[in-house]
Amino acid sequence: RSLDIVGDRWSILILRAAFRGLRRFDQLRRALDIPKAVLADRLRKLVEAGVLARHRYQDHPPRHEYRLTAMGRELSPILVALMQWGDRWLSENGPPTVLVHEPCGTEVRMALHCTASGEDFPPTAITSRPGPGAAALRPPTEST
Amino acid sequence: RSLDIVGDRWSILILRAAFRGLRRFDQLRRALDIPKAVLADRLRKLVEAGVLARHRYQDHPPRHEYRLTAMGRELSPILVALMQWGDRWLSENGPPTVLVHEPCGTEVRMALHCTASGEDFPPTAITSRPGPGAAALRPPTEST
Repeated sequence: RSLDIVGDRWSILILRAAFRGLRRFDQLRRALDIPKAVLADRLRKLVEAGVLARHRYQDHPPRHEYRLTAMGRELSPILVALMQWGDRWLSENGPPTVLVHEPCGTEVRMALHCTASGEDFPPTAITSRPGPGAAALRPPTEST
Repeated sequence: RSLDIVGDRWSILILRAAFRGLRRFDQLRRALDIPKAVLADRLRKLVEAGVLARHRYQDHPPRHEYRLTAMGRELSPILVALMQWGDRWLSENGPPTVLVHEPCGTEVRMALHCTASGEDFPPTAITSRPGPGAAALRPPTEST
């Protein structure tokens, strides 16, 4: 279901702009060169999904801006990973934009990283176990 | 453009199954409970995109399996980040499946992590600079 929210190209671009600090309809429209109706539609969907929140910043005339919620801010690893993968595999001239960790200037890179060992690891080192929500996916057994 | 590849729900589920080691049409069909025509269509698209490769594993009758390419394996951070976000924000009963780093059993978690400082950081600590591909997006100047 995450894809219903981030699986759309315009939605991803709007979210990326929101991470860059763009909050207002006209700022977004100009920065993304997106048709007004499409922008209005995607903003409405992102607000409904809970990743953006609409705030009135002016009363006369009424004007609103769109801010990332906590739920929206946590999309950041997905966006960074998508961008990194596209840069590496789909971009012919190298990445148009490089994300850096501001305090130290190190390039941002999403990797599978073990918080216990402190090491990066390959996807083949991942296994899985049932989590707390696993029971809800199974039909109840006769004993329950 | 990354979204053309991973922005589809069935494609994501097929890739996730591929990471779990499922390679054959019938295995995938049963594991995902996916209609044959849809599975065939998505496999063809994933092969065309270069994230899966089709290998013949039997000659009489001819049988093929689908293996992740290097390009496909590097989708792993995106898939893990999508799953983690969905578990945290969309799952009412907690995660149905928990991914763990097999050697040590630590839960896999995608975070913005600085390879220089070794610390996790929030998205507000990200800034950007033009990369090598930036020039290709700008119209040529008069001096070039």
